[in-house]
Amino acid sequence: MTNLEQGMWFTEISERDGSAFSLRINKKLEVKQSPFQKVEMFETTDFGNLMVIDGCTMVSTRDNFFYHEMISHPALFTHENPKNIVIIGGGDCGTLREVLKHPSVETAQQIDIDQVVTQMSLKYFPELCESNEDPRAEIMFDDGIKFMLDAEPNSLDIIIVDSTDPIGPSEGLFNRDFYASCLNTLRPGGILVQQSESPLMHMPLLLDIRNAVRDVGFTDLQTITFPQPIYPSGLWSATLARKEGNFIGFRHEDAANLKFNTEYYNVGIHLGALSTPNFMKRAFNKR
Amino acid sequence: MTNLEQGMWFTEISERDGSAFSLRINKKLEVKQSPFQKVEMFETTDFGNLMVIDGCTMVSTRDNFFYHEMISHPALFTHENPKNIVIIGGGDCGTLREVLKHPSVETAQQIDIDQVVTQMSLKYFPELCESNEDPRAEIMFDDGIKFMLDAEPNSLDIIIVDSTDPIGPSEGLFNRDFYASCLNTLRPGGILVQQSESPLMHMPLLLDIRNAVRDVGFTDLQTITFPQPIYPSGLWSATLARKEGNFIGFRHEDAANLKFNTEYYNVGIHLGALSTPNFMKRAFNKR
Repeated sequence: MTNLEQGMWFTEISERDGSAFSLRINKKLEVKQSPFQKVEMFETTDFGNLMVIDGCTMVSTRDNFFYHEMISHPALFTHENPKNIVIIGGGDCGTLREVLKHPSVETAQQIDIDQVVTQMSLKYFPELCESNEDPRAEIMFDDGIKFMLDAEPNSLDIIIVDSTDPIGPSEGLFNRDFYASCLNTLRPGGILVQQSESPLMHMPLLLDIRNAVRDVGFTDLQTITFPQPIYPSGLWSATLARKEGNFIGFRHEDAANLKFNTEYYNVGIHLGALSTPNFMKRAFNKR
Repeated sequence: MTNLEQGMWFTEISERDGSAFSLRINKKLEVKQSPFQKVEMFETTDFGNLMVIDGCTMVSTRDNFFYHEMISHPALFTHENPKNIVIIGGGDCGTLREVLKHPSVETAQQIDIDQVVTQMSLKYFPELCESNEDPRAEIMFDDGIKFMLDAEPNSLDIIIVDSTDPIGPSEGLFNRDFYASCLNTLRPGGILVQQSESPLMHMPLLLDIRNAVRDVGFTDLQTITFPQPIYPSGLWSATLARKEGNFIGFRHEDAANLKFNTEYYNVGIHLGALSTPNFMKRAFNKR
């Protein structure tokens, strides 16, 4: 916590970016050191509750909808008939909730290594956990890398890697071995979704992700962008990678006739997110 | 300047939002108190040079392209044949540069009240000022409100209000009297563009702007969104208001065959910016 003149603030200093972001807080709610990471909860003055993991802002009540909707719905509306979904990470359960809004989904397995994240979310973000009891949901606390290695080949339609940054426990989720096991586990036409950091701040990392998934054999890529105010630069991305064949649009009509509530996502937003800013196009074309 | 553990940082505390944003700086370059406001220049470690006015981050070398492109090109590609443009504010000259990229433009007048802003920009953002000597450009230092009152009726195609927040010298740029004089000065089919703050953080203000321009007689509105990392929430907006008739698309083909360089804007980005997130739609429909 930092003392910025008046009041108490939580500040995330992003040394790699030369930037910092602060939220004013009413009080610290709870802190737990799990075997994997330090999880802190704050009550902010304007963003609702805030979860911080190892010093990085992860989830706030007010703005998590951008990330959770955009890591889920574009992929689920791109796949022709998504039935079997795996979420690696995602312990706050917000992505699980979005995934389960799709009636085609038959199973949604969430594998986060750290059950403290889910315990905290149940307590401080109950709205994100409202689908945890859905009979299609299975919530596991285990090593996502091992889970993917042991999973049955050709058994999944979508794998969403909803992880923290590639340092600490998530490091192994950003490499070729892991992506190769994801490829193996997806059915043809299946989609891997990886949160791929800020295109403005972390282009080298985004390019590494794109190269790695291509190298292991994914045949087409889409990097989408969306706002995420509490993350560095406020502009975030997710990269969708397809097993076999090319992305050919998405289920436009289903997206245009949404049968569930969203705060950000709609068919126009999906189209917009697919529009790559020129500075990103140039970076992608260089490699 | 704030001392965040290591190094020196410039921090903008947004009291109204309960958030703060900091950039790490190498050194303070210059500070001038003009008759209107305090203008500070910093050299940052990762964002190039930074201009701060009355404590608020205004322009950085690294990320100003989002704002300058999006306050200009969507309007200039929406108008059928934009010839006569006025920029109210915009003293850093970045908007002027973007406007002058359009070959149809015959005159572009920039009226900022504070010449210190332009002096600083010439020195620290020379790239933004590279079109200042264009024979179509006229740079004035005067009161924008008075300028619009005195301007000839039906003489302009686009008015861009590229102002600071509605406190201090810019307060008078966010009210009905000013908008009415803009309406009077535009030709039929003309467009007023107003920077309209963060849709996530400042929805009441955005709604006020939309209501005010409608009240004075503008007949159609478009609020577009775009990233702006150094502004509160990182998600910003501009509102386009049309004199007589409705917006019917934009010059898609011209935008698709861009004859000049941009970092962010392209035809897909324009389409995406026109897609209103659901939370904004709901707020707009309530009024």
